Amino acid sequence: MNPFDLDETIHQRTRLGIMTVLYEAGEADFAFLKSTLDLTDGNLGRHIEVLAAAGYVATRRGYDGRRARTWVSLTPQGTSALRIEVDMLRDIVGRVQPSQN
Amino acid sequence: MNPFDLDETIHQRTRLGIMTVLYEAGEADFAFLKSTLDLTDGNLGRHIEVLAAAGYVATRRGYDGRRARTWVSLTPQGTSALRIEVDMLRDIVGRVQPSQN
Repeated sequence: MNPFDLDETIHQRTRLGIMTVLYEAGEADFAFLKSTLDLTDGNLGRHIEVLAAAGYVATRRGYDGRRARTWVSLTPQGTSALRIEVDMLRDIVGRVQPSQN
Repeated sequence: MNPFDLDETIHQRTRLGIMTVLYEAGEADFAFLKSTLDLTDGNLGRHIEVLAAAGYVATRRGYDGRRARTWVSLTPQGTSALRIEVDMLRDIVGRVQPSQN
């Protein structure tokens, strides 16, 4: 198996960020993801669509007072796919020395 | 700094594979890279162009008997850029538990 045959749906840097933040947060709303990852509405929305279409994340709509909010969380499928991606990254990381700076 | 602000020139999975294999091999020819990473001539050629344009790899042409061969190696700039990328991946890897399988 090609050790670099990474899942592009997750490996893409913004989506890797979204998946890792959701893994840690459990669930996060759009505003949190946007500010944490320094994204625009459009950019975040497109990446969430790709991840939801792959079955890796689920979204939930609700209200905070009168403000509509959208929460995002990893599905079990997303969690295991992220772990497989990170296992492969762990192998790559082990092959390269840390930088000095 | 956004911990997921990875250098797309290196982070793209095929180019990450090329850079890591070159880091380990020191220098490798096209045939070795193609077979190791399961790539086509066109695919490998395009990625090498992107990496060379960024100053991350250098290519050298030569002959093996009468057979023309192209060798590729990391530049010092490429080596340090790879280490920075891998440092960031090391941080991400530390945030996610290994998968059980």
